[in-house]
Amino acid sequence: MSDWLEELRGLLPADVLVEDPDVVAAYAVDRAGQEHGTARALARVRTTEQVSTCLEVADRHGTPVVTRGAGSGLCGGANALDGCLLLSTERLDRVVELDRANRVMVVEPGVVTATIRSLAAEAGLHYPPDPGSVGFATIGGNVATNAGGLCCVKYGVTGDFVRALEVVLPSGEVVRTGHRTVKGVAGLDLTSLLVGSEGALGVITGITLGLLPAPPPAATVVATFDEFTDAGRAIAEVVAQGLVPSLLEVMDRATVTAVDRMTGMGLGEPAAMLLAQSDTTHAAEDAERLAGIFTSCGATDIAHTDDAEEGAQLMAARRLAYEALEPLGTLLVDDVCVPVDQLPGLIATIERIADEVGLTIATVGHAGDGNLHPNIVHDGHDPASVAAARRAFDAILTAALEVGGTVTGEHGVGRLKPDWVGREVGPVSARLQAGIKEVFDPHGILNPGRGLPLP
Amino acid sequence: MSDWLEELRGLLPADVLVEDPDVVAAYAVDRAGQEHGTARALARVRTTEQVSTCLEVADRHGTPVVTRGAGSGLCGGANALDGCLLLSTERLDRVVELDRANRVMVVEPGVVTATIRSLAAEAGLHYPPDPGSVGFATIGGNVATNAGGLCCVKYGVTGDFVRALEVVLPSGEVVRTGHRTVKGVAGLDLTSLLVGSEGALGVITGITLGLLPAPPPAATVVATFDEFTDAGRAIAEVVAQGLVPSLLEVMDRATVTAVDRMTGMGLGEPAAMLLAQSDTTHAAEDAERLAGIFTSCGATDIAHTDDAEEGAQLMAARRLAYEALEPLGTLLVDDVCVPVDQLPGLIATIERIADEVGLTIATVGHAGDGNLHPNIVHDGHDPASVAAARRAFDAILTAALEVGGTVTGEHGVGRLKPDWVGREVGPVSARLQAGIKEVFDPHGILNPGRGLPLP
Ligand SMILES: Cc1cc2nc3c(=O)[nH]c(=O)nc-3n(C[C@H](O)[C@H](O)[C@H](O)COP(=O)(O)OP(=O)(O)OC[C@H]3O[C@@H](n4cnc5c(N)ncnc54)[C@H](O)[C@@H]3O)c2cc1C
Ligand SMILES: Cc1cc2nc3c(=O)[nH]c(=O)nc-3n(C[C@H](O)[C@H](O)[C@H](O)COP(=O)(O)OP(=O)(O)OC[C@H]3O[C@@H](n4cnc5c(N)ncnc54)[C@H](O)[C@@H]3O)c2cc1C
Repeated sequence: MSDWLEELRGLLPADVLVEDPDVVAAYAVDRAGQEHGTARALARVRTTEQVSTCLEVADRHGTPVVTRGAGSGLCGGANALDGCLLLSTERLDRVVELDRANRVMVVEPGVVTATIRSLAAEAGLHYPPDPGSVGFATIGGNVATNAGGLCCVKYGVTGDFVRALEVVLPSGEVVRTGHRTVKGVAGLDLTSLLVGSEGALGVITGITLGLLPAPPPAATVVATFDEFTDAGRAIAEVVAQGLVPSLLEVMDRATVTAVDRMTGMGLGEPAAMLLAQSDTTHAAEDAERLAGIFTSCGATDIAHTDDAEEGAQLMAARRLAYEALEPLGTLLVDDVCVPVDQLPGLIATIERIADEVGLTIATVGHAGDGNLHPNIVHDGHDPASVAAARRAFDAILTAALEVGGTVTGEHGVGRLKPDWVGREVGPVSARLQAGIKEVFDPHGILNPGRGLPLP
Repeated sequence: MSDWLEELRGLLPADVLVEDPDVVAAYAVDRAGQEHGTARALARVRTTEQVSTCLEVADRHGTPVVTRGAGSGLCGGANALDGCLLLSTERLDRVVELDRANRVMVVEPGVVTATIRSLAAEAGLHYPPDPGSVGFATIGGNVATNAGGLCCVKYGVTGDFVRALEVVLPSGEVVRTGHRTVKGVAGLDLTSLLVGSEGALGVITGITLGLLPAPPPAATVVATFDEFTDAGRAIAEVVAQGLVPSLLEVMDRATVTAVDRMTGMGLGEPAAMLLAQSDTTHAAEDAERLAGIFTSCGATDIAHTDDAEEGAQLMAARRLAYEALEPLGTLLVDDVCVPVDQLPGLIATIERIADEVGLTIATVGHAGDGNLHPNIVHDGHDPASVAAARRAFDAILTAALEVGGTVTGEHGVGRLKPDWVGREVGPVSARLQAGIKEVFDPHGILNPGRGLPLP
């Protein structure tokens, strides 16, 4: 049997198939900075046919294929494996169609999410999903991880806006799933199965999104607290009182301080900061109610703004959290989601764990969903520090499971959590998932060892 | 090998395992009234363990198992197969938990959907899904068919509210999928795969639902039209103008007349009637805007009401459509969904098809989603009439596919549409679905021949 790379050389244009080790290496790791292998080549495909070609050849040779969007993932899911083909979708970046009458947009996977949001907005429409990485992550990566973001507390996750997909299977065959219509139940829901499948079932090459009408401009409330757990109580109270803000984010002291250092916004050093928005037609009134709840839960300082510009600046500060924390050390990013009434307890537990292991844990999160990202700051070159970080990571996951939560709210399984996800879902589910994997990818070439629970 | 029924006799209490042919026969057919076989026995299970027992024994003997909720389905999916075990979930009807703080309800599958809605309302919460059959269909049947209803234009379908499931596999094993939290991406989304799987992958024994805060009381607008296509244009215009009513239903002349005959409400004989509701805090204003659009599209008569009681009466009339039509003859119920801007064209096509085959087609639908139910009225005892109805049925499905629609918007595949769904999804998707079926149900005992596309 000939070499797969040699075969691909004959089938793909030279500008698509990249073998220069420096270029290939630049695609070897995602933002989790986890261990990675060395790929043999990188395909920067421009068409669905080229994806088919890559997969068909790789499948025949049993070559692992790692699909990459922007590589902004936080679980090592797009990291190179030794000897693999890296398949980058960044040039599959056409906006195929914007159908205003039916509020539908059809895009290729390499389109950056922010582009989709602004094109929708220009047409008087709204694509809500807005992960912190909205300015650089791709929609394909968002779909493959079922990305969340700041909007989820009101609007849900990426998958809630995906109507139909075009997907290439390892056989090279192209399958279309779902429907362009608002509803449809023609057979099993393969679309939802592929959403969040982290490149382990097929390569997504086309995405049909359902959009909403544009909402009114949002009103923003910012509140600071002297105790982090008070912020947690405030969040639980918002939900208990039946409010649905369009955004409800939390940052702890370490995060606020880091963001402040980066932006010079003068945010102070509160124990916690809550950012909330409402985008209904009576947003200012909603903001008042939110502020009232925050006050009753012990907020020390509250600021309002109906000014969209000012609100956007605050949100931009929030989006910088990860970048602002990166200079502090190596980050081990956790991603737990619990029932909202369990947030105060979880926050207290995280603070206790930080004390126990002697590391800073900078927590930020989409708190309105019960989703926290404790960033465990450590020294990646010091084995003792790495071990302590790992202990904290595991202790946080254990705590989340104990209160009915999940070990990953939105970042995914990747190479970081197959064992923990296995523990969460149990052996029967893990077996079913392995069976499904085999149906889509019988030779196991797609992101092997990732994305699925270990039994 | 001993007989499966004999084996079950030894394992299930006498009040659970029913063999009386008259009782068994009462569970043999759903509301589509399609052909059905003769079951050998009926299990009216009370516990998950009894479901496990039934499936484990049936699986070992290769006995077909047909799961039934209320039998209100409209695609023959719960009809008996010759020699099968009918497994009724109607006694699995406990409301396990209502968690107000996290807006979560946990129920068994046999709970009637209206019960869930009213329990939620009593707690200040809202479970939106409301199929026309809400008063008698079970939540298990709703989940297994991913039922739609009147709310979908704003709130989505049953699956949008399902967070987690407990499911029994043919092996008798119990698997828990999903998460209680708002978000979660721990592995493949088996929950969504099981939603809409029509009893072909497993038996759903527990359902965790996410709820919303209760909305304000709805304002209602009713409009009549002299041309059915004008009503279609009005619907498309509502969507194009970016309005999101909480309900937008259509009934044609045959349906309005039949409902009027049943209720004596004095609805007249318009070519079409639109019912619309809004449930925002500025509902009356929304209703004005809706009325304005209806007028501009040629509505002849418009009535408003902010009175919830009066609105509820009108909705009750709409829910009676199917019962009101049943006395007219045998009904062959179609269920197509198209992009909303294609509605006027589809309506004209349906009118033309009715003329061509010489039958009444009474059309009713969740028009705001593009979902129409053309009820083909014919004489089920006259082969020529049956053949004409079948021609109309096929012509409507063809027309829906041609304009980018689906052959089933919400009723499902059942025994009625495996061939049509196969045509819609194509052979690669059909093969993947067959593969998934085999992973869950290796011996093919669960609703064999139903729910999945024929390749
Ligand atoms: C600063 C920052 C903030 C973030 N904020 C959020 C947040 O708020 N919410 C959130 O959910 N995530 C967040 N993330 C994580 C990350 O941005 C998301 O997971 C995002 O969806 C990844 O998109 P990507 O294009 O970078 O995909 P990649 O990282 O390249 O890939 C992610 C996974 O998807 C697979 N994949 C990518 N494209 C395809 C395709 N076309 N077909 C099949 N598989 C594919 C890859 O194999 C990999 O397993 C954040 C990351 C950063 C750095
Ligand atoms: C007057 C009328 C109005 C209707 N309006 C609507 C509407 O607006 N929207 C809509 O979507 N449908 C509607 N329907 C169709 C029907 O009510 C729905 O499909 C409903 O979800 C069926 O629920 P059921 O409990 O009657 O299920 P059944 O009819 O008993 O079963 C339906 C399917 O689900 C499977 N099933 C049932 N329970 C389980 C379980 N626990 N585990 C696994 N599989 C199971 C069965 O095997 C079968 O394939 C209507 C029907 C009528 C008669």
